[in-house]
Amino acid sequence: MGSTWGNTIKISIFGESHGTGIGVVIDGFPSGVAYDEAFVLREMERRAPGRNKQSTARKEPDRPEIQSGIYNGKTTGTPICAVIRNTNQRSNDYAELAAQPRPGHADYTGMLRYDSCNDPRGGGHFSGRLTAPLVFAGALCKLWLKEQGVTVGSHIQSIAQIQDMPFDDVEVTAEQLDTLRNAEYPVNNPRALEAMLAAIEEAREEQDSVGGVIECAAVGLPAGIGSPMLDSVESRLSSILFGVPAVKGVEFGAGFAFAALRGSHANDPFYEENGVVKTETNNNGGILGGITSGMPLIVRACIKPTPSIGMVQDTLNIRTGKVEPLSIHGRHDPCIVTRAAPVVEAACAVALADLLKEAKGYHA
Amino acid sequence: MGSTWGNTIKISIFGESHGTGIGVVIDGFPSGVAYDEAFVLREMERRAPGRNKQSTARKEPDRPEIQSGIYNGKTTGTPICAVIRNTNQRSNDYAELAAQPRPGHADYTGMLRYDSCNDPRGGGHFSGRLTAPLVFAGALCKLWLKEQGVTVGSHIQSIAQIQDMPFDDVEVTAEQLDTLRNAEYPVNNPRALEAMLAAIEEAREEQDSVGGVIECAAVGLPAGIGSPMLDSVESRLSSILFGVPAVKGVEFGAGFAFAALRGSHANDPFYEENGVVKTETNNNGGILGGITSGMPLIVRACIKPTPSIGMVQDTLNIRTGKVEPLSIHGRHDPCIVTRAAPVVEAACAVALADLLKEAKGYHA
Amino acid sequence: MGSTWGNTIKISIFGESHGTGIGVVIDGFPSGVAYDEAFVLREMERRAPGRNKQSTARKEPDRPEIQSGIYNGKTTGTPICAVIRNTNQRSNDYAELAAQPRPGHADYTGMLRYDSCNDPRGGGHFSGRLTAPLVFAGALCKLWLKEQGVTVGSHIQSIAQIQDMPFDDVEVTAEQLDTLRNAEYPVNNPRALEAMLAAIEEAREEQDSVGGVIECAAVGLPAGIGSPMLDSVESRLSSILFGVPAVKGVEFGAGFAFAALRGSHANDPFYEENGVVKTETNNNGGILGGITSGMPLIVRACIKPTPSIGMVQDTLNIRTGKVEPLSIHGRHDPCIVTRAAPVVEAACAVALADLLKEAKGYHA
Amino acid sequence: MGSTWGNTIKISIFGESHGTGIGVVIDGFPSGVAYDEAFVLREMERRAPGRNKQSTARKEPDRPEIQSGIYNGKTTGTPICAVIRNTNQRSNDYAELAAQPRPGHADYTGMLRYDSCNDPRGGGHFSGRLTAPLVFAGALCKLWLKEQGVTVGSHIQSIAQIQDMPFDDVEVTAEQLDTLRNAEYPVNNPRALEAMLAAIEEAREEQDSVGGVIECAAVGLPAGIGSPMLDSVESRLSSILFGVPAVKGVEFGAGFAFAALRGSHANDPFYEENGVVKTETNNNGGILGGITSGMPLIVRACIKPTPSIGMVQDTLNIRTGKVEPLSIHGRHDPCIVTRAAPVVEAACAVALADLLKEAKGYHA
Repeated sequence: MGSTWGNTIKISIFGESHGTGIGVVIDGFPSGVAYDEAFVLREMERRAPGRNKQSTARKEPDRPEIQSGIYNGKTTGTPICAVIRNTNQRSNDYAELAAQPRPGHADYTGMLRYDSCNDPRGGGHFSGRLTAPLVFAGALCKLWLKEQGVTVGSHIQSIAQIQDMPFDDVEVTAEQLDTLRNAEYPVNNPRALEAMLAAIEEAREEQDSVGGVIECAAVGLPAGIGSPMLDSVESRLSSILFGVPAVKGVEFGAGFAFAALRGSHANDPFYEENGVVKTETNNNGGILGGITSGMPLIVRACIKPTPSIGMVQDTLNIRTGKVEPLSIHGRHDPCIVTRAAPVVEAACAVALADLLKEAKGYHA
Repeated sequence: MGSTWGNTIKISIFGESHGTGIGVVIDGFPSGVAYDEAFVLREMERRAPGRNKQSTARKEPDRPEIQSGIYNGKTTGTPICAVIRNTNQRSNDYAELAAQPRPGHADYTGMLRYDSCNDPRGGGHFSGRLTAPLVFAGALCKLWLKEQGVTVGSHIQSIAQIQDMPFDDVEVTAEQLDTLRNAEYPVNNPRALEAMLAAIEEAREEQDSVGGVIECAAVGLPAGIGSPMLDSVESRLSSILFGVPAVKGVEFGAGFAFAALRGSHANDPFYEENGVVKTETNNNGGILGGITSGMPLIVRACIKPTPSIGMVQDTLNIRTGKVEPLSIHGRHDPCIVTRAAPVVEAACAVALADLLKEAKGYHA
Repeated sequence: MGSTWGNTIKISIFGESHGTGIGVVIDGFPSGVAYDEAFVLREMERRAPGRNKQSTARKEPDRPEIQSGIYNGKTTGTPICAVIRNTNQRSNDYAELAAQPRPGHADYTGMLRYDSCNDPRGGGHFSGRLTAPLVFAGALCKLWLKEQGVTVGSHIQSIAQIQDMPFDDVEVTAEQLDTLRNAEYPVNNPRALEAMLAAIEEAREEQDSVGGVIECAAVGLPAGIGSPMLDSVESRLSSILFGVPAVKGVEFGAGFAFAALRGSHANDPFYEENGVVKTETNNNGGILGGITSGMPLIVRACIKPTPSIGMVQDTLNIRTGKVEPLSIHGRHDPCIVTRAAPVVEAACAVALADLLKEAKGYHA
Repeated sequence: MGSTWGNTIKISIFGESHGTGIGVVIDGFPSGVAYDEAFVLREMERRAPGRNKQSTARKEPDRPEIQSGIYNGKTTGTPICAVIRNTNQRSNDYAELAAQPRPGHADYTGMLRYDSCNDPRGGGHFSGRLTAPLVFAGALCKLWLKEQGVTVGSHIQSIAQIQDMPFDDVEVTAEQLDTLRNAEYPVNNPRALEAMLAAIEEAREEQDSVGGVIECAAVGLPAGIGSPMLDSVESRLSSILFGVPAVKGVEFGAGFAFAALRGSHANDPFYEENGVVKTETNNNGGILGGITSGMPLIVRACIKPTPSIGMVQDTLNIRTGKVEPLSIHGRHDPCIVTRAAPVVEAACAVALADLLKEAKGYHA
């Protein structure tokens, strides 16, 4: 419920964009996992704003202060808490928004949901900044998954209408995913990247924004994880992915393209190689009947264009009851897709770690 | 977990395709809701096979036997259980499948998950037949939602590559949804329907199958329902929708099309009409920040082509370790999309009823 | 929530005393457990009314009809559903109760909770009859626990004020628990049993009732099961035990007697025997810090006297607003403690199986 | 699971006794509740060590640093996080304990549960210090419950074998509970208090410890809260109470004394007064059929004697495999019952707030 998610590994995210601190409690995390701080900070850095021209100019350190759950360099198995201080708020940027709920944002629905008591500054608990603790949790889960032979990675599938080369859903490797993780922009095709960056720049100049799609893969997952009927691997992954602000679509394998396929092409025939059962194609994205098949897991999430744009929008002033022009000042990304890759990965890593721990028990 | 789903209204689905009975327990359903048996049976009938040429020839009554939870024509508030007897199994149709797990099906992953102990006949617990109890639960939820002013309905958005006219995401009405519910095929554009039926017929003749997309809408939902961050309305809906066999993609509002939009076009500006706050467009599909906005909720689910096809497929025989031809006999729909509309609606109705009860408490 | 309970093994109980049927869905039960029908029916029989002079004269077969989840004599791993038909209702016995909610019963609170829509006949969903599906679920869990080396058993610790010899909390064995399970009355001391039966008979003659205490033990549990802080083994067991109608107290090990002990006597010192760590005493009832220690688990539940008594009670008539005499007709046990032992065991077995599966994962 | 608890209000407790910080995230807390800091700090202070001669000499400020969820002096409705820094650890006190797991403590079971990776210093996550964040959460819940007309309070029912005057389970008032909350020791009978303090002092001198019982009451609860069968008010309260370290028994109303009562005395007859339905007696402790009756809720929790005692104990050295003398140095309370009252109240307040929010919905 709310900002708490998971079954055998449960995360509870807290914080508001301009409050004292944000963070996460991770309950049920396996004990004895080596805490690789450099890796975790690198993951945080991938998501952080201000890294490059495409993202907002805010520069916050986003350094997680570990309160508990790590001892002698290893996870204890009892709850891990990390707090990230908020240090660089400019709340006055948001002053006028109270009267004019921003289109595409949660200002209006949040007000109704919380009887106007929620913190509106910078989007409060709805802020994209709240994905920082999710990335922290995801980084820890990746450390454990790595010990279990599982690698999670992603690339930008598209920005605006420019498509990257998709993953080879049969052959994608851990090495490829690791390489993408270390790239400034996780894009397979350099020319697509150029065009994407140009599209972002164009949107910025017009004080507008663009959206895109992240494609995420997990390799090394054992077959046989997940449960029918209502607790499929797809159910778990989509449930947390749709918790990421701005995600409005989630698909697995061929996804919506299945609608145009015939069964004879959509089905993935089985074969055996060195005693391992595989499928020749992987339209099902590594999941059959809600259970992992051992093939690479492929999931895509659509990220809507940043709703905060400088361009004037005509929208309701709830004090006057009239539609009036609104221009959102402040520092906003013309495209959050470049920063969304580590967030989508983190959500997937948390969900897969939760599923794997459920399958393997306490001492996996 | 597993086949249990929900928070304040919890459903627990049981049964195997060729076992004694299938059914559902609904725990936490509001008390005092009039049980409209005719409506419930009509909903069951919409999903049932054998209704028309497009669907499989099996003809089972699918009559839910109420065990509990309804008294004096009203729901009691204590658990409702309905059992549907399995009466028309032909298990021998499935004999050869044990050696050759069907491509696109859960035969192989189910075997791993359950140590080869699960009932393989007719797909067992993975069978599409298990959507019958979900439709029962959804019908009950629709009855309560109707009392609360909420109507859930759907149409076939596409089959093969033939598109129906989408819902007007701002103007769609309860009447329109009710009309679609009573149609033989819920399609807005009669010409699209003709083309869809032809495509299905063509697939049947070639012993192949086709997929499609269901678009579902809910109107009358109060604004302010749902919770950030990880328990968004999208999270809840997608979680149950991905529990429906064959669903491989879920999107809300503009969905994946957001990836190609600019923020200036994607944002839905607010205005006020007769004291009610609305948005001029509804690209966000009635959900902002994971919370209902009061606009129509729009969700689409992609249904993959029926994996059971008569056409020969070359696939692994796990006894011989060799790839061998497989031809699936038995009665199978060349297209389950026509029967999927009430199932998608049911999943949405269950999720929305659960959310609404959480918002309103015991005595809503 | 409601009548649904559990984490990795989830039970969902349904039914009303005088409705069509009662039963349970068990979701997440391990696959491949041999279904010993004779054992299950014997457990059901232990709880069933009408077995002897001490219990009510109703005689219902209480035969669980398996709907799903058992195939080729083994559990499938997918949901198990059992339905027990109600065949022997005499609803007219309860006619007058609508106006005069029975003292000590849920008639009044149930009416408030469910807006007077719940089925009042025979207590409806609040009836002790609903413990029959719990015993069914418990019997299945005992079958799996037995495969895992765990035995759950109990005896009547007291009825009225007559005390049985308590379990030796260090030395109690699986054999002893099995013997008690097969006894007509599970009492260690035959003289205590005689006195108990006499006390029950005396209460019956005076149209009154008596209560008592069940002591339950589990041996063979691995050490290291359960979790601090808020999910202790005690938390799980008490949560389900307080779901059993008439249970008003639960204690572990020395329980309330701890209040009179000094730490120096209460602490259980460790020693090692043949490489196994044990404690010399077992005041903590096999649980330290919410986690099993490997010593026998000891828990006691207090059962209040049957609130249905023939003796006249002066109590409110809600129609007149006046206190008026009430005499409860019908067939009621003067003591349900004799039938409560298998129910308490069942609750413990379900909770322990759930904990063990969480610890061991899917394929335990 | 683990240290996460609750349904509509969910708490997630983190921290180790000698780690960086401890604290709690409260998710789902109602919005708009005025944050009375003085009240919260007073509640924290009631639990804090070092307040008087009876408790340990450690003196830590236990000041909760609010990270999120409170804005403009009110709760926002989004997650509240409070962190309490650990400032006064003396880890060397615990050095020798690694080899000799302390009897009555979780040292041994924690080691098994967490593969020896958990933080052992000061008991780590098992420490009684972890009740501080629970008291914080309870204080917030009390603030909301007060707005709803509900007061939770407690007294020390017994220490060693000295009994306080129990609550009048029919007449206990909010005023009485408020008075007890502000007393140095919440005891009704001053002479009993004197004897209790003497017993504690005697135990201290002998380097031993004593246990006791806390009786907690809630008045003003609406009737009709809670659910049969497995989600009774007793289930919820006991589940969290058994999460409090050292609690080994929980009972409601007459509790274990029911075992010695006849039904004719145990039943609570109804009557009506000024249109309100009441019971003449309240042996059921304000709960019938798992649902609140509107009468005062009465619950008692047994607290075992502090297992940390200075007196020599002969217990296993796991390195040598031999039983050896152990004397626990460090600062330990000879009796934690005096500090347990606010903790038991807090656990009850959290459970009741959770139940009440579920009953009333978002905007209660």
